[in-house]
Amino acid sequence: MDLAVSLEQRLEETADRITVALDTLVPRVQGPEARLMSAMRYAALGGGKRLRPFLVLETGRLFGVDERCLLRVAAALECVHTYSLIHDDLPCMDDDDMRRGRPSVHIAYDEATAILAGDALLTLAFEILADPQTHTDPSIRIQVVARLAEAAGARGMVGGQMMDMIAEKLGDDIAAVTRMQRLKTGMLFTFAVEVGALMGRASEDARHALSAYAHDLGLAFQITDDILDAEGSVELVGKAVGKDRHKGKASFVSLLGLAGAKQRVKLLADQAHAHLALFGARAHYLNTIIDTIIERKS
Amino acid sequence: MDLAVSLEQRLEETADRITVALDTLVPRVQGPEARLMSAMRYAALGGGKRLRPFLVLETGRLFGVDERCLLRVAAALECVHTYSLIHDDLPCMDDDDMRRGRPSVHIAYDEATAILAGDALLTLAFEILADPQTHTDPSIRIQVVARLAEAAGARGMVGGQMMDMIAEKLGDDIAAVTRMQRLKTGMLFTFAVEVGALMGRASEDARHALSAYAHDLGLAFQITDDILDAEGSVELVGKAVGKDRHKGKASFVSLLGLAGAKQRVKLLADQAHAHLALFGARAHYLNTIIDTIIERKS
Repeated sequence: MDLAVSLEQRLEETADRITVALDTLVPRVQGPEARLMSAMRYAALGGGKRLRPFLVLETGRLFGVDERCLLRVAAALECVHTYSLIHDDLPCMDDDDMRRGRPSVHIAYDEATAILAGDALLTLAFEILADPQTHTDPSIRIQVVARLAEAAGARGMVGGQMMDMIAEKLGDDIAAVTRMQRLKTGMLFTFAVEVGALMGRASEDARHALSAYAHDLGLAFQITDDILDAEGSVELVGKAVGKDRHKGKASFVSLLGLAGAKQRVKLLADQAHAHLALFGARAHYLNTIIDTIIERKS
Repeated sequence: MDLAVSLEQRLEETADRITVALDTLVPRVQGPEARLMSAMRYAALGGGKRLRPFLVLETGRLFGVDERCLLRVAAALECVHTYSLIHDDLPCMDDDDMRRGRPSVHIAYDEATAILAGDALLTLAFEILADPQTHTDPSIRIQVVARLAEAAGARGMVGGQMMDMIAEKLGDDIAAVTRMQRLKTGMLFTFAVEVGALMGRASEDARHALSAYAHDLGLAFQITDDILDAEGSVELVGKAVGKDRHKGKASFVSLLGLAGAKQRVKLLADQAHAHLALFGARAHYLNTIIDTIIERKS
């Protein structure tokens, strides 16, 4: 590992490779249904931090997993993440006109196309994972499918989104808000961090360490989101902010206060670092990403 | 096979068993996100002809596949079919307030819940298929996942729905309308008919015969839909009808005329019967379902 490469360069390199992979994997724009593929590509190739793919690649490398396989899994995960953003932005959901500094899919296209593009990206994720190119061993591939489906479904991400829709009703229940975030964003984070260990047949110890890392990192990410939402401005984060607060939704900031939320993030970051001790210098970028995530401004 | 059992009884028995299977497989209604599960169950357990599950079971039985495995695959397929109906009924899509004689999900709940319930049912389909209970051999399971993802995605059902959204623009191009229907409904029909052969490791000959049967049956089903749409009444089919015609969308009836469309259905039914010759009396119900499909009134 060339430690002379900064995390920023490494993130950029990963983002570029994921975009190239998605460019190959998302269907070409053609036929009378071209509008669908165009919307899928607009959303999937339109940038983003590519944080989840980064985690897939960095953890998979710890166990010597073939980079081409990791890229496919990372691209599939990004398809799921992208679909969730498209549906989340719809008028009947969060009603966000902007995403990643550009018009949301339902603004750039229309609502029907946005719904279908989301549906197609979710389906594509499983098509990518099921392909023999993703891993030579079908029993590994099917486990990856099972884990992604579990993390993304009613008892995972979509369940968390449903809780988020009624977050006003969660009141001041910190356990409920924590569970909501664990479902909404935590489970895909956990998938991102654990899938490389699964593909590389990592030891039990390594898996446990990564699971704990994923848990703390995901929660730190989400609390930071709430802090940015409370403090941020529309210029910096490229989407409408301050909405949660105005809608009276429960958040970590409303429950812990700004100082308390920041303290919690610091604690989680320390824990996340500790979990990586097992991997030594090989986990260099997994360590540095923690600080980048909690110190980010958008 | 007890030929004394009428097709009607056999269909009813299958429908009941699928409902029982879905009742087990769709998550319980609990937690703050209970509304999501409630909407999923409302849609998935709310009846319907269960035609696709019937095809999965009948074809799978030809090759001696374990019934419990077939039921799981049939339930997964019905999850995909149900999700497509939920999203299709949304105001920005077909805007149908009624489905299967009851309020559509976005009417009984709300639009956001309908979108999430559809997303969760699609995801659940893959979770069901990936589970070891679906087939002991992981290489068979992963092939089933791959086929369903292909049939349901941008180059399958969702692509067909996109074409349908812009069907006015297809004009009088019979090839384009045929392709739209092939994508929109044909590919899931084909999956339903072929998956049992895959799971039962059927011969090449048997697979080819079933593929041809699926193609003709799916098209006959869809042309009959267009005929019912042109002729039908809201009382009989339990959803708003005559909409396609009024919107000036291309359909088989607009392209072939009513008599021409009926003639085409008859031809396809004859072909479908012929493809089953290979299986003799064992294909009794697969034969009789053809006539039920083309003579249905809703």
